[in-house]
Amino acid sequence: DYSEKVMDHFANPRNSRKMEDANGVGTVGNPTCGDLMTIYIKVEDNIIKDISFQTFGCGAAIATSSMITEIAVGKTLEEALKISRNDVAEELDGLPPVKMHCSNLAADGLQAAIENYYENN
Amino acid sequence: DYSEKVMDHFANPRNSRKMEDANGVGTVGNPTCGDLMTIYIKVEDNIIKDISFQTFGCGAAIATSSMITEIAVGKTLEEALKISRNDVAEELDGLPPVKMHCSNLAADGLQAAIENYYENN
Ligand code: FES
Repeated sequence: DYSEKVMDHFANPRNSRKMEDANGVGTVGNPTCGDLMTIYIKVEDNIIKDISFQTFGCGAAIATSSMITEIAVGKTLEEALKISRNDVAEELDGLPPVKMHCSNLAADGLQAAIENYYENN
Repeated sequence: DYSEKVMDHFANPRNSRKMEDANGVGTVGNPTCGDLMTIYIKVEDNIIKDISFQTFGCGAAIATSSMITEIAVGKTLEEALKISRNDVAEELDGLPPVKMHCSNLAADGLQAAIENYYENN
């Protein structure tokens, strides 16, 4: 079963939108289920000023992405690179073991977006 | 990539709700990704008068469930039992091969709900 926090972020995802003026974009795929995740970041002075996501993934993928946007905003790129899927799962008060693979999408997507920002700048 | 019909049923799912007065309920799990689907039916005179679903599954699972509710409503139980995942995918103008496993949830859930109705009545 899912925690109340997971259900809240699933039902009311934060920052689930395309970002037209992002300066870092990362898209990653999930080999287990075939889902895709895109994370958009807007970086200023080495700080993540804005972050959003788009996915066709399941409830766990939506909830972990929503949560990672709240964790990452305001952080430096170095701090944001250290956010792991376990950090996200902990902030959500846990995820069923069978759904931990879904939380890879959010953490990997954020790393890909930061790498894309470094490549562009 | 997803067809326009898939994106429409994902963004505006039909009949995505719990049904308190269902007389058939089926819950099935997806071994590939760990997602769950519950289908509710209300049967009168051997006809599916109302049908709804709840899932934590991905966009493809939401779209196929939404579509199967539109296909199944008004059908006899014998007709509804014949609805396959391929029928649903065809009505949606196709699904990417990697996401066909997601459409099992809708078709299997409907069969489980009909079997549950037969057991109860
Ligand atoms: S990935 Fe689980 S239902 Fe689609």
